[in-house]
Amino acid sequence: MIQISKEDIVKAHELIKPYIHKTAVLTNASINAIAGTELYFKCENFQKIGAFKIRGGMNASLSLSPEQLKNGIATHSSGNHAQAIAFAARELGTNAYIVMPSTSPSVKVNAVKGYGAEVIFCEPNQAAREAAVEKIVQETGAEFIHPYDDYRVITGQATCAKELLEEVPDLKAIVAPVGGGGCLSGTALWSHYFNPAIEVYAGEPEGAADAILSFQSGKVEKAPFVKTIADGLMTTLSEQTLEIIREHVSNILLVSDEEIKAALKLVYERMKIVVEPSCVVPLAAVLKNKALFAGKKTGIILTGGNVDLTRFSEWFQ
Amino acid sequence: MIQISKEDIVKAHELIKPYIHKTAVLTNASINAIAGTELYFKCENFQKIGAFKIRGGMNASLSLSPEQLKNGIATHSSGNHAQAIAFAARELGTNAYIVMPSTSPSVKVNAVKGYGAEVIFCEPNQAAREAAVEKIVQETGAEFIHPYDDYRVITGQATCAKELLEEVPDLKAIVAPVGGGGCLSGTALWSHYFNPAIEVYAGEPEGAADAILSFQSGKVEKAPFVKTIADGLMTTLSEQTLEIIREHVSNILLVSDEEIKAALKLVYERMKIVVEPSCVVPLAAVLKNKALFAGKKTGIILTGGNVDLTRFSEWFQ
Repeated sequence: MIQISKEDIVKAHELIKPYIHKTAVLTNASINAIAGTELYFKCENFQKIGAFKIRGGMNASLSLSPEQLKNGIATHSSGNHAQAIAFAARELGTNAYIVMPSTSPSVKVNAVKGYGAEVIFCEPNQAAREAAVEKIVQETGAEFIHPYDDYRVITGQATCAKELLEEVPDLKAIVAPVGGGGCLSGTALWSHYFNPAIEVYAGEPEGAADAILSFQSGKVEKAPFVKTIADGLMTTLSEQTLEIIREHVSNILLVSDEEIKAALKLVYERMKIVVEPSCVVPLAAVLKNKALFAGKKTGIILTGGNVDLTRFSEWFQ
Repeated sequence: MIQISKEDIVKAHELIKPYIHKTAVLTNASINAIAGTELYFKCENFQKIGAFKIRGGMNASLSLSPEQLKNGIATHSSGNHAQAIAFAARELGTNAYIVMPSTSPSVKVNAVKGYGAEVIFCEPNQAAREAAVEKIVQETGAEFIHPYDDYRVITGQATCAKELLEEVPDLKAIVAPVGGGGCLSGTALWSHYFNPAIEVYAGEPEGAADAILSFQSGKVEKAPFVKTIADGLMTTLSEQTLEIIREHVSNILLVSDEEIKAALKLVYERMKIVVEPSCVVPLAAVLKNKALFAGKKTGIILTGGNVDLTRFSEWFQ
């Protein structure tokens, strides 16, 4: 049973507002012409820490009592959630312990350290991550905040769709990317509460196609293989995010890395903004399924813009 | 004697408003911390055609009578002015003739053709450009609109500083890049009319250092050598732009290509926006001269975002 109410999301939004930006919603005439519909991009690349993940991380941290906060907060992540938790800890005057795979790019490690967090390295696999975070929680008494398998995090991510629909209330469809499902389930939940007629879709890379399998079977499945430039979307769903997604998402649309690259090029060239490959997966899905979106004013969550600039040469050829 | 009055600029702004975007002014906490001052970026990379040049091109075109417009408009340019004239012609229902060097990248040629303009190729040197445009003007009766040596163009470019100062009226300094001087002279002129106490500076690449020589000697000089990644700033001043710059610009600040690359990286990483190397030259100049700008709320004209994405690998290493 879904535990998150409309009021929970409204309350979360009030709670985190002082710590986040209300990001711009952009539209672009030439991309609309190509897509054959009106698209509204919620630009979370302009968000604090460069990604929407601050919403869930901040909400989870603000849900803790002073007593719980005292010993710090902890997580495992090599991506934007790591920065979100590090940022939240700094804002709330406590310690952050971030378990990162030893293979993490130094640019990401430095960003986390830049917020004053303590980084603990582990072997680059799921079991090692979980063991390392359990150890640090036992040693320090820190509170663990999972990147997406956490109702407080999902509730925070939902505030992004809330802002988008406050700005463009007559959207007929919203498309979000899906990795662990925190953004997608939050988006689907708020859209449903706001107006049950809104269709919510997910864009998923063919090279990390677990959500579509889980969506079909009803239990958390693994991807047959994992290889994609959308490196923020390699995680699998949790029971919690899957439940919401099965209930409130219309469909999951797969796209290839070539289609992701084409959408990425379009966003850089036409919109003149810097975004991660993961976050153009929804645009790629819209461009691949034009008939589905024709005549539907559609919102797209652009989840983040934290890129390693030296990778541009792989993406744009 | 400077021919452009405050009223001319106000009138130009009213005239071109229906054809341009009022672009965003952005500020960024982490770049401010690095610069040691508050910076306000006027984002003309988000402008129609992706650059401020639409302002001058549109104003010049709208200054023509129906009789003058009838036979089309013409220019020589391998850059954003070409797109501006092509766009203006399409908007006003006339023909555009654009002389471009035969070495122009196909991405730029295609952008101009995309607006329906006729492209005439010439040898890649100044004499060939001028001869080709003269020939096409004689053949077609089209009106020639120079990229910057034209008071109507300068008046149009001045509207960018006008919008910036309407949004942030208490700026103490404004920095613009200098190539031919259209943007810089327009910026200096409006800033002077708005508040003579505002200091206007130019950023210029060491690898195209003609404006600084002309500024010092009082006559139009050539650069000792031309080699820079700021490829929009390779042109020399005209008599007209030099006169305004000598009168109203405080100083011209030189920066190296390494400094331009560092500023470019900062804008992509922190602001998450796509800009041309030419347009971060002012930011590079501010970062190189921190003492000069300390405590001065400073505006920066980000002139455009039309980049060839395959060149990222040269810029970001």
